Amino acid sequence: MRVGDKHFRTIWLNDDGRAVDIIDQRWLPHEFRIVTLSTVEDVATAIRDMWVRGAPLIGVTAAYGVAIAMRADPSDEALEAVWHTLHETRPTAINLRWALDEMTRLLKPLPVAERADAAYARAAEIADEDVELNRSIGSHGLTLIRQIAASKKPGESVNILTHCNAGWLATVDYGTATAPIYMATEEGISVHVYVDETRPRNQGAQLTAWEMAGHGVPHTLVVDNAGGHLMQRGQVDMVIVGTDRTTANGDVCNKIGTYLKALAARDNGVPFYVALPSPTIDWTVKDGLAEIPIEERSGDEVSLVWGRAPSGEVVQVRISPDETEAANPAFDVTPARLVTGLITERGVAEASAEGLKGLFPES
Amino acid sequence: MRVGDKHFRTIWLNDDGRAVDIIDQRWLPHEFRIVTLSTVEDVATAIRDMWVRGAPLIGVTAAYGVAIAMRADPSDEALEAVWHTLHETRPTAINLRWALDEMTRLLKPLPVAERADAAYARAAEIADEDVELNRSIGSHGLTLIRQIAASKKPGESVNILTHCNAGWLATVDYGTATAPIYMATEEGISVHVYVDETRPRNQGAQLTAWEMAGHGVPHTLVVDNAGGHLMQRGQVDMVIVGTDRTTANGDVCNKIGTYLKALAARDNGVPFYVALPSPTIDWTVKDGLAEIPIEERSGDEVSLVWGRAPSGEVVQVRISPDETEAANPAFDVTPARLVTGLITERGVAEASAEGLKGLFPES
Repeated sequence: MRVGDKHFRTIWLNDDGRAVDIIDQRWLPHEFRIVTLSTVEDVATAIRDMWVRGAPLIGVTAAYGVAIAMRADPSDEALEAVWHTLHETRPTAINLRWALDEMTRLLKPLPVAERADAAYARAAEIADEDVELNRSIGSHGLTLIRQIAASKKPGESVNILTHCNAGWLATVDYGTATAPIYMATEEGISVHVYVDETRPRNQGAQLTAWEMAGHGVPHTLVVDNAGGHLMQRGQVDMVIVGTDRTTANGDVCNKIGTYLKALAARDNGVPFYVALPSPTIDWTVKDGLAEIPIEERSGDEVSLVWGRAPSGEVVQVRISPDETEAANPAFDVTPARLVTGLITERGVAEASAEGLKGLFPES
Repeated sequence: MRVGDKHFRTIWLNDDGRAVDIIDQRWLPHEFRIVTLSTVEDVATAIRDMWVRGAPLIGVTAAYGVAIAMRADPSDEALEAVWHTLHETRPTAINLRWALDEMTRLLKPLPVAERADAAYARAAEIADEDVELNRSIGSHGLTLIRQIAASKKPGESVNILTHCNAGWLATVDYGTATAPIYMATEEGISVHVYVDETRPRNQGAQLTAWEMAGHGVPHTLVVDNAGGHLMQRGQVDMVIVGTDRTTANGDVCNKIGTYLKALAARDNGVPFYVALPSPTIDWTVKDGLAEIPIEERSGDEVSLVWGRAPSGEVVQVRISPDETEAANPAFDVTPARLVTGLITERGVAEASAEGLKGLFPES
């Protein structure tokens, strides 16, 4: 996507053909820093310390990490070592493990001399596959936006509310929830996005708003509290969010606060869509509320807020009393009954076992 | 209420019998500053720049402002001048105008020599009346908390979620939504409060959490996004919020985000109560959604967050891109259908025209 007048992906091969370059997302939106990862240690740090985040991007970064390792030492021992080094950076990330297993599966049978080239080729392929998945999600979501746009008067925008960052920064390009938005913009449809701030980590204010600003998509930042009011006043035509895990029955686990927006959408007749690549469907889980454990993160993420001080320095400020503890559940579960449709790479499914099975009969 | 081991109101007469002392709330929770207001200009600044806030407290502060003016110059001209000076500090505040009119009504007919004493006496009375109103609300809310406590196992707390600050800092003492909580605590009922952060101005994180910490009420700060999840998991027994304006039909206008909590409460069978002194009922308005205009405040309140920097300095940090505009609707309207009951100084009313008329037949 565009950052000013240049196009970027979130990760790309350095000109030296060995290292990879990434956007160090910790400094957004205040500074746009590109960092070169030259060693496995660089890659491990970048994943662990969240210079890159978002499941698809973590997977691709890890794949390149394996390639970097193979260029330095293509032995079986090195292949095993890089799997462990990178896997422990974010042990619960599904895409991370998938990418490491995929690289190992491919490289292990190859002669040592061929491993590095094969690894770089597969890492590039995984990156391209992610982009294609998101473009497919985008084209199906675009159909929905076109339908709303057709009902608008000349000069009116389609107003879309989104929560958190399921944008291109979380993937290699396009994003999941944002792909339909970018494709609508490219097609000349007038779109305006309400960006939920997304406390406590402010991915909306820091990342989604920055994406929209960079790509020139009209947008307005709002606090997470505002969405219900906007829907009551008819200011939202549709909601599109991403998901970390969707159950076989269509329950959606996503960033904390998603459920409240789904309730407001239902109460006001606003369609509520979830964009997801099929690998995030967990076919083993049915009842999201009963079966998905919710990660409890540090209360410091609530009590301390990152931002740019008047001095220009990016710092954390404390917003609450020192003696007040904070709880920080990171995700919530939106029951399928509140979801209008699941936008997948194969089309839009009803949020139900039947709906998902219909699109993915092989699962 | 207690701040550490001392009891405070939000405003009290200075030892000199002329000036008034207030808590300068701008620095909470980071610094507890008491400021003496000696002149009408001091009082005007304190109201305008929100050293004091909350409708009841603003009214009492203004009443003392009139008394201070009368001690300096009890003439008709001075009485008229102080009305105008203070009224323009926060022109939309209903209690401010009420207090100024009330003082004028009382003082105008009096001989000039009697005005100052009468003004101080009436200001003190208005302050005491506010405390009594809140104690009455508290005792009716306490009955509801007792009922829930009775169904708990030994050692279990009653979990109450509140939004924004309808606490003692917004009134003279006790608060509205917090009065039942403080009275339950005083009675020895085990209560635990989930404090909504309340973006964008963070009144929950800055003020309600500080109140609870100071008074020793067990509490946990959560982001506004978390309430739905907590209710899904059975972690909230009841919601109590305040209100800025309630319609004759029981629709509740309150801090932005209240509506989302009411939706979640309904979806999970959690009782949702609104605490209100009857002067906040607007008998002229029926349909809150159609008839109450919602104040749009500066987007800077969203983009810039106050907090204590690592240096110890209290500063504002920017959390979003410079080029991103923010919208900032300050309130929303919770339809009466989502409200379990209205806790007034005369008892708990059903949120309906009949319910309110039943308790306030004279209106």
